[in-house]
Amino acid sequence: MKKIQQFLILLLFAASLSAQQAPLFDATLAQARAEVDAEIAAGIAVPVPKDMAGGYTHERHKQNFFILQKAGALYQLTKEEKYADYVRDMFMAYAELFPTLGLHPTNQSYATGKIFWQCLNDANWLVYSSQAYEAVYDRLKTEERNKLETDLFRPFARWLSIENPQFFNRIHNHSTWGNAAVGMIALVMKDEELLQWALYGLPNDNIAADSVDNDGGYIKIGGKRQAGFLAQLDHAFSPDGYFTEGPYYLRYAIYPYLLFAQSLQKHRPDLGIFAYRDSVLQKAVFGLLQQSDPRGVFFPINDAQKGMSWMARELILAVDMMYVDGGYDPRLLSIAEMQGTVTLDEAGKRVATDIALKKAVPFQHRSIEFRDGADGKSGGIGILRAKATEEEHCLLMKYAAHGMGHGHFDRLSFSYYDESGEILQDYASARWVNIDQKGGGRYLPENHSWAKQSIAHNTLVLDQTSQFKGKVKAAEAQQAERYYFQGKGDAVQIVSAKEAHAYPGVLLHRTLVMLKDESFANPLIIDLFRVETEEAHQYDLPFWFQGHLLSSNFSYHTATTQLNTLGTDHGYQHIWKEAEAKAEGNQAQISWFGQGKFFSLSTYTQSDDSLIFARLGANDPQFNLRHDPVFILRRNTTGSSLFVSILETHGDYNPVEEIPRQPFGSIQEIKPIYHDKAYSIIQFSTFAGESWTLMFSNSDKNENSSHEVRVGKVQFRWKGIYQLSKTKTID
Amino acid sequence: MKKIQQFLILLLFAASLSAQQAPLFDATLAQARAEVDAEIAAGIAVPVPKDMAGGYTHERHKQNFFILQKAGALYQLTKEEKYADYVRDMFMAYAELFPTLGLHPTNQSYATGKIFWQCLNDANWLVYSSQAYEAVYDRLKTEERNKLETDLFRPFARWLSIENPQFFNRIHNHSTWGNAAVGMIALVMKDEELLQWALYGLPNDNIAADSVDNDGGYIKIGGKRQAGFLAQLDHAFSPDGYFTEGPYYLRYAIYPYLLFAQSLQKHRPDLGIFAYRDSVLQKAVFGLLQQSDPRGVFFPINDAQKGMSWMARELILAVDMMYVDGGYDPRLLSIAEMQGTVTLDEAGKRVATDIALKKAVPFQHRSIEFRDGADGKSGGIGILRAKATEEEHCLLMKYAAHGMGHGHFDRLSFSYYDESGEILQDYASARWVNIDQKGGGRYLPENHSWAKQSIAHNTLVLDQTSQFKGKVKAAEAQQAERYYFQGKGDAVQIVSAKEAHAYPGVLLHRTLVMLKDESFANPLIIDLFRVETEEAHQYDLPFWFQGHLLSSNFSYHTATTQLNTLGTDHGYQHIWKEAEAKAEGNQAQISWFGQGKFFSLSTYTQSDDSLIFARLGANDPQFNLRHDPVFILRRNTTGSSLFVSILETHGDYNPVEEIPRQPFGSIQEIKPIYHDKAYSIIQFSTFAGESWTLMFSNSDKNENSSHEVRVGKVQFRWKGIYQLSKTKTID
Repeated sequence: MKKIQQFLILLLFAASLSAQQAPLFDATLAQARAEVDAEIAAGIAVPVPKDMAGGYTHERHKQNFFILQKAGALYQLTKEEKYADYVRDMFMAYAELFPTLGLHPTNQSYATGKIFWQCLNDANWLVYSSQAYEAVYDRLKTEERNKLETDLFRPFARWLSIENPQFFNRIHNHSTWGNAAVGMIALVMKDEELLQWALYGLPNDNIAADSVDNDGGYIKIGGKRQAGFLAQLDHAFSPDGYFTEGPYYLRYAIYPYLLFAQSLQKHRPDLGIFAYRDSVLQKAVFGLLQQSDPRGVFFPINDAQKGMSWMARELILAVDMMYVDGGYDPRLLSIAEMQGTVTLDEAGKRVATDIALKKAVPFQHRSIEFRDGADGKSGGIGILRAKATEEEHCLLMKYAAHGMGHGHFDRLSFSYYDESGEILQDYASARWVNIDQKGGGRYLPENHSWAKQSIAHNTLVLDQTSQFKGKVKAAEAQQAERYYFQGKGDAVQIVSAKEAHAYPGVLLHRTLVMLKDESFANPLIIDLFRVETEEAHQYDLPFWFQGHLLSSNFSYHTATTQLNTLGTDHGYQHIWKEAEAKAEGNQAQISWFGQGKFFSLSTYTQSDDSLIFARLGANDPQFNLRHDPVFILRRNTTGSSLFVSILETHGDYNPVEEIPRQPFGSIQEIKPIYHDKAYSIIQFSTFAGESWTLMFSNSDKNENSSHEVRVGKVQFRWKGIYQLSKTKTID
Repeated sequence: MKKIQQFLILLLFAASLSAQQAPLFDATLAQARAEVDAEIAAGIAVPVPKDMAGGYTHERHKQNFFILQKAGALYQLTKEEKYADYVRDMFMAYAELFPTLGLHPTNQSYATGKIFWQCLNDANWLVYSSQAYEAVYDRLKTEERNKLETDLFRPFARWLSIENPQFFNRIHNHSTWGNAAVGMIALVMKDEELLQWALYGLPNDNIAADSVDNDGGYIKIGGKRQAGFLAQLDHAFSPDGYFTEGPYYLRYAIYPYLLFAQSLQKHRPDLGIFAYRDSVLQKAVFGLLQQSDPRGVFFPINDAQKGMSWMARELILAVDMMYVDGGYDPRLLSIAEMQGTVTLDEAGKRVATDIALKKAVPFQHRSIEFRDGADGKSGGIGILRAKATEEEHCLLMKYAAHGMGHGHFDRLSFSYYDESGEILQDYASARWVNIDQKGGGRYLPENHSWAKQSIAHNTLVLDQTSQFKGKVKAAEAQQAERYYFQGKGDAVQIVSAKEAHAYPGVLLHRTLVMLKDESFANPLIIDLFRVETEEAHQYDLPFWFQGHLLSSNFSYHTATTQLNTLGTDHGYQHIWKEAEAKAEGNQAQISWFGQGKFFSLSTYTQSDDSLIFARLGANDPQFNLRHDPVFILRRNTTGSSLFVSILETHGDYNPVEEIPRQPFGSIQEIKPIYHDKAYSIIQFSTFAGESWTLMFSNSDKNENSSHEVRVGKVQFRWKGIYQLSKTKTID
């Protein structure tokens, strides 16, 4: 009896499967219905603007534009009049309010808004509202449209453009929102003047050359006179689709790009917006997906908040729209599946349908380099990835342009990740976005004094001073040099870049190698940080390891009853010095435990090098900072120097089984053999008796060049940029 | 075509479902086969003992007994001779080795072993090996049995008993392993003398009354002369099945209890071991399952390592065995499902079969109190639980006996949990079990200097001195008093206990209320900590909150460039003092963010109270401690005092949406109205205009007593132990 029942249930299931075409879309629709119906029942609230972000009027108006957009979409999909009526009534309330508004009473922004404290949020409102207006346009009476356009939409669009050129006429993500808002409402209203402004900028803006915004970024970029949406597309992205502020801000910025592009595609297909600049929008979306760790969490470079990921609402739009407008790439479906929701439109319906038809193909992270700068000549970022037995490891090296107002002084820094998250971290920003208790959710003072400084990153710091002395203008004026990138997924992958301007008279050259070899359970990271100079400097090479220190092969002196700071400026004032050691011999090794795994870092030391354990948290009067640990190799020397380090991931442990697996690292010795302007040669050996030699050409990138270096009685020869060889000593 | 294919696949699936009876068991069997086959292929290794835990010989012999047990089980289940042969050959190798062994060369234990560094591990070996020997017994030739029993098993059993009475003849988890090992091999060998020792102890042990073990625990417990397995059952558990060392150690200790009981049930059913002492073993197992947070992670009280849970291998045995031997309780099946594996025997097969038959019923955590002490008179622990809209909240208050060598000085402390883990933490032990890099995996010096001290726990500390001055003997001699427990799952649940001996001349009385009410999104914790004394003392009430401090309603002075310790002894030397404030008004409130959620703590302050933010990590020369934050209310006063605090969980935030939900707490004011030996009365109000009054009888537990207290012009009247009433002010 029971078996017959089970059989019938399975028959039913089989039948329902063929009927149910797009369950993900149905779920999204049902959720939107529930949400909008509840708002309709609660009634319309359009309060007089008063509060900062987090306060009532701010959050209410924000909620209003989200609901307007959804109600419009619901009307389009269901043709139920209550949704169109709701949109109309809400707009009418805004049409009464808007003409009465002066500047928002907070008046704290370089471009204060009317409904919100800044024009940026006002532009958000108009972008969403334009979609809602378009959705119900055909249902409105002519006099209703006239009222709305005369009292609300046109003055709103002029407010965001001609009346706030410092906001609108600029190459910046704020302006993109402005351009999109004005352009999208222009397309619905068929207002050609506004559309021209949105696409090509204002004819004349009268902005002073040295104006700055609230984040300290310059309004005008030297030599750039263009503005408007197409100029944003020209200037905001590199030819590879990289966004100079990094993925956290691209995730935010991509939204108006995509929405405006969608409107343009519909109303002005002649512009061919998706093909514009060699399909730069598509490149940007795929690039954004790649600029993430194995979990799909974006690399938190520059002023990012950690944890933003593929799950963000902007990415739901990006994935669904690019699926339909970008040629039905089935890898996007696997990300849509992970997101668990789709957009409330035809694109979302198509994505949901194709997922139900099992068309999804896994999205693969890969090693990839992105050039920065509109012309691709402002450095870049390099991402190396390798799969271990079970885990994906991933390294990001940064040698991009400064990233404008949101940039950090962290050229040649790197961060390292696996499936659990961070192994070597980038601190990201000192900001709790939208959390009122932490400075109203805005950037905290420690963002400048700590998060942007060089010592907050895994890069070499000279003389306890940040790169470019921490000056944005100096950093923006100079670019790092992409030297070499080899990310074909082979056993040996390399990223190498140079920075000649961060410190006067000093060339910094870092080469990171990701080695996958049967001798190691997981990929090995080899770090060559070379300094070319004739002067004397103090060098600090920090490793912001994520985890709990387990052991070291050197003895150290710990501060047990009193802690002092590591310095007084450039971020050093925020670091408590916990322990210090003088280097013993030439090998310093530490191991730590984090996220259930063991890690070891080995680094070559010279006599007089010192080793420092420290922790973030000093000079933090409001407890704004995390108390994270760092290990620093410190060297005082004159002339050129080479820092060689190897990072291993090995073994694991969990508190249920309590059995450590491979708790010890395998590196026995690291030896720098040779280094100068032309070549770096190093060797390292393992406890298993294997010996490795890495030869690298520092200046000649020709793959066909032959190189020869004699060190004592040994002749090193290789062809091309590098060679990595392994020898096994037989006992 | 595609639909027909899908239909056929479903038909196939339906057919296979009826054939596959116990997939979980099949998977366990297949895994054991793969593991043992690999070991058989690798060959037998029985090295001469040399290493500590973590070293090669230790880990090899440990692996050997695990594989012996599995090979024996595989032989029983499959009757494949290769498994029996492997067990025989391995035992023969041990029979050659064992007679050549003296004391293990490490000689660092109060009971040094032969194969391992301590007898405890030797006993582990014999428990597992007894099962393997029994499994292959019938297949061995008589001369093989004679050889094994003469050269290996009998001398091994005598080594663990008559030759090490300080290990064997004691009420302690070590001895349980000894008793089980000797008893289990005795049952297979039919050696009545050894069985009698195992069940009833050695006739005479000659152990000095003041001998201590490596953890500082006393070998002899005052007045107790009994030993052996039945005495362990009498003394190790309270009548409720509570184990005085706590769940982490019970998890470990339960294993030999269950295995020996299983053998006794088979060979000596006349003893009725599972019914012994009102089914105390069953109570212990169900109690252990309850002594966990909402995720099934054991409360880390006393010397526990955090993270041990229902997933532990000992619990897999406990759940499967208790399912079969304890009457097929279907709630156990849901835990077995979560464990994802079963035991390799008939019990495991039955569990897997019944899971496949969908008999599992969810296991429900509930509010429950456990008495401690063999007679149930040594205090206990109280667990309160309530379900919020989405989450289960759970509070553990500890007023148990000292917990012998593994006890902490933490009477009246509490810890608090939700589905994500810890909200207020218990530090647990300073130990990295089996991690060689941290003191060989043994207890670290900071376990004594920090983890056991009172300030490491959420309990009141007087005069910067631990309870009982940190003396084990004094703590063991005195018991806390269970005062009141009401855990029926109602809106108001209460645990209340008194401690009269921790500090001379001072009565400590803590009452914790878990309130579930529609006014609050989640359960509210009300904490009344009352001190009865005539003397002057300094009081520190610490809250070890897990998360990042967001805000406070008072200004504080932060140490920005230099940190010093909070004290010099009793654990205070391990705490860095980060900030201090003088109480402003009578309300101190802080909020923090942890695990994606917001928390607020409100506490009533008197003038001259001070408020301290501090962090663990001082005097930690080897980086053994975690750097966790604490908030301390400090009061200097003469005579009795009442500390009133309220802890709220409210709202959440995630970095993908970046929208805080309910980031602020709702408590506006707390007022202690009255307190003396007989009564405590407090009031508190919310920003929503609600006012609450809690009246509590401190001495009279009669549910029928009427109480009356006049304070000024207000008369408070109630019946029974407590009353909690709510009034709403209408604007």
